[in-house]
Amino acid sequence: MKAEIGVGLIGLGVVGGGVARALIERREYFARQVGAPLVVRKAAVRDLSKPRAVELEPGVLTANVEEVLNDPGIDIVVEVIGGEEPAGTYIRAALERGKHVVTANKELIAKNGPELLAAAHGRGLDIMFEASVGGGIPLIAPLRRDLLANRITSIRAIINGTTNYILTSMARDGAVAQALRKQGIEPVARGGYADALASAQELGYAESDPTNDVEGFDSAYKLAIMATLGFRTRVRPSDIAIEGITRLSASDFAYAEELGYVIKLLAVAERRDGGFIARVAPVFLPQTEPLAKVDGVNNAVQIYGDLSGTVFFQGRGAGADPTSSAVIADLLDLAHGIVLGNHERKYWGPEGELPSLGLEALESRYYIRVKVSDEPGVLAQIAFALGDNGVSIAAVNQKETSEAPNAAELVVMTHRAREGAMRAALESIAALPVVLEVGSFLRVEG
Amino acid sequence: MKAEIGVGLIGLGVVGGGVARALIERREYFARQVGAPLVVRKAAVRDLSKPRAVELEPGVLTANVEEVLNDPGIDIVVEVIGGEEPAGTYIRAALERGKHVVTANKELIAKNGPELLAAAHGRGLDIMFEASVGGGIPLIAPLRRDLLANRITSIRAIINGTTNYILTSMARDGAVAQALRKQGIEPVARGGYADALASAQELGYAESDPTNDVEGFDSAYKLAIMATLGFRTRVRPSDIAIEGITRLSASDFAYAEELGYVIKLLAVAERRDGGFIARVAPVFLPQTEPLAKVDGVNNAVQIYGDLSGTVFFQGRGAGADPTSSAVIADLLDLAHGIVLGNHERKYWGPEGELPSLGLEALESRYYIRVKVSDEPGVLAQIAFALGDNGVSIAAVNQKETSEAPNAAELVVMTHRAREGAMRAALESIAALPVVLEVGSFLRVEG
Repeated sequence: MKAEIGVGLIGLGVVGGGVARALIERREYFARQVGAPLVVRKAAVRDLSKPRAVELEPGVLTANVEEVLNDPGIDIVVEVIGGEEPAGTYIRAALERGKHVVTANKELIAKNGPELLAAAHGRGLDIMFEASVGGGIPLIAPLRRDLLANRITSIRAIINGTTNYILTSMARDGAVAQALRKQGIEPVARGGYADALASAQELGYAESDPTNDVEGFDSAYKLAIMATLGFRTRVRPSDIAIEGITRLSASDFAYAEELGYVIKLLAVAERRDGGFIARVAPVFLPQTEPLAKVDGVNNAVQIYGDLSGTVFFQGRGAGADPTSSAVIADLLDLAHGIVLGNHERKYWGPEGELPSLGLEALESRYYIRVKVSDEPGVLAQIAFALGDNGVSIAAVNQKETSEAPNAAELVVMTHRAREGAMRAALESIAALPVVLEVGSFLRVEG
Repeated sequence: MKAEIGVGLIGLGVVGGGVARALIERREYFARQVGAPLVVRKAAVRDLSKPRAVELEPGVLTANVEEVLNDPGIDIVVEVIGGEEPAGTYIRAALERGKHVVTANKELIAKNGPELLAAAHGRGLDIMFEASVGGGIPLIAPLRRDLLANRITSIRAIINGTTNYILTSMARDGAVAQALRKQGIEPVARGGYADALASAQELGYAESDPTNDVEGFDSAYKLAIMATLGFRTRVRPSDIAIEGITRLSASDFAYAEELGYVIKLLAVAERRDGGFIARVAPVFLPQTEPLAKVDGVNNAVQIYGDLSGTVFFQGRGAGADPTSSAVIADLLDLAHGIVLGNHERKYWGPEGELPSLGLEALESRYYIRVKVSDEPGVLAQIAFALGDNGVSIAAVNQKETSEAPNAAELVVMTHRAREGAMRAALESIAALPVVLEVGSFLRVEG
């Protein structure tokens, strides 16, 4: 039996620091759980002079990653620097030198997970990545193991805290602004996107360059990982239709509220006969749906398995502590296996390659908001463009808008229609001379 | 590498039948996941002549459990008959003969889990019991593994579908009855307990003898299992203060609704310095709480870990398919380990024995409903009894009641108070000559 499990950290930022701190503070407890203590032998950082919240023993901190990769006393390498490179190179090198890997790297796992797993398993090693999706919420292990008996046919998730915080702010500020206006007071925060983003940045919930979050890429990486595991087929980020939240306006939130919906950035993967559809986009969700009630920086995932039924997970999707909780779960699992001498690791790569069916295969209800000239016959023209493409209208709402003279805002909710038909209709609508702008086009879920 | 994993079933009822059916129908898929097919070699039933929904190969069905326990081709025994005995004897015999065990038996695991696990691990075997709590919701594995880095300090759960169905019905029927009365119509279903139980029985959600569910025993078994795992200390069913739902009346639901609460049978375990408090009882939950929105036969569990924060799980807590999903997850996990030759199993029994602190250590807000003589000074007497014991009143509501002439119903919501003080106050109140009956006494959570 091993006397100690050596851990090497690549990265000692928010997550790495949290992991190191927990490994030091809970050393006795973890040693009892695993059968041997976990000891941080090396921690590679970019800048040795930067002050650290965690105190490591002398000689542990290094600016040279090779010292982590080459240390024969290190059994498990924890990669928490993120991004495709150089993280990918480091992970491959760690595997080549016989080390297990724990990573929180969603981009890398989403793009190259199956190859990295195959490389690991070929050497009797494992790569674990519970922390790559949903912070402290157990999601990878349930998909790998606990729901394995099921044919999983759908995954629906609010899986990016930054955007959910912004959307929650927009909804709340918009509601407050409306209430103030009714009392004749012009509100300061009107529920627009820019204000909400700025406040999220101030609070540290959004980065100074928020592209990765607000354009939906982060959600797509996480969806790719979950869908690959759940559907047992390769789902690449490039298979996912991605749309961000930057084009949403305060009026979309006002209409949503009025109609009984909330707007959420939803990541959805559905397994169909002969393929799958995966997408990330803001949608209208009925206010009564469990996912509609997930506010602020929370994450939540709804998984439908044919035996389990719908299973719902919710919790904190980011932050030092929740992510550490996930990283350390993987560390303890691997360490336990090493202590027990269980060198064979469970392989669980995809079973095959189902095709991505793309959005054309989708059927949904839709919400569109169009700015039009305020003249007679406009509604008829738009109704005709929809009907001509086989899309039937469920509800219409026309309002004057203060933004432009002689302009009106027209909101249409459709019945279920094929996405292809809806897009053709939208093109016809955009081409109408009376249409000034197609403001929003959102799917209505549930 | 093993050519086949032999499975023996003890019990072929709703769950056992579901497991057998899935093992047959998904044989190819499971074989790919595990590396070898899982084959049901023997299935022991009480009555051979009973028709079965699943067709087994000739010679598999037997009325003699010994045939399961003695079959050298059986690697894993699945016990799905429930109850302490003879299930416990069968499981011990299976372990003695070198077989792993998968069980859905909450009573047995709650009472004897640590001993059975120790017996198993002493032989390099394992007992798995994901199906014992929460049906298809992954709970045991997250507590065992995914949240292991955390100090878990609280578990709050709606973990019995029968009672949640009954409570949901009572709330709904009561609301409908009130609406009808406002229109001058006397309702048929008035939201009483007996009506709701009868309808649950008709729908198959409650057994003909519902004691185990409605008196809270089933919830307590499940809470004992979760708290033992989460707190890493032995929590026995006998450590849990248990109160059922049979004394709730339609008027409790009406007051709850009016005050912004719902009534739920909540299983709560809290870890304190030097011990734990565990209890199952109907409580007032604020309508805004995630657990308050869990309706019908659904189950939900909220686990607080110091790193992960609050993690929330929800899904179908019972039924053939969800329970099969959990049993098979365990089966596949064990089978995979056997195929890989990983004979050493992870031990994860309790670390020690913290004492149960009992309800006296509790502090809570309280709701009490008292039937009193409708005479001057009654409220003053009750207020005095509370104040005399150090319990301060947050809100009072007094109504005439149609049930008895010259009687009134008095509802008191208190501020936070020690449970001991509250109980002393209740005794004083019950002893007052003007008090006809202490109808309800519920904790107010959140």
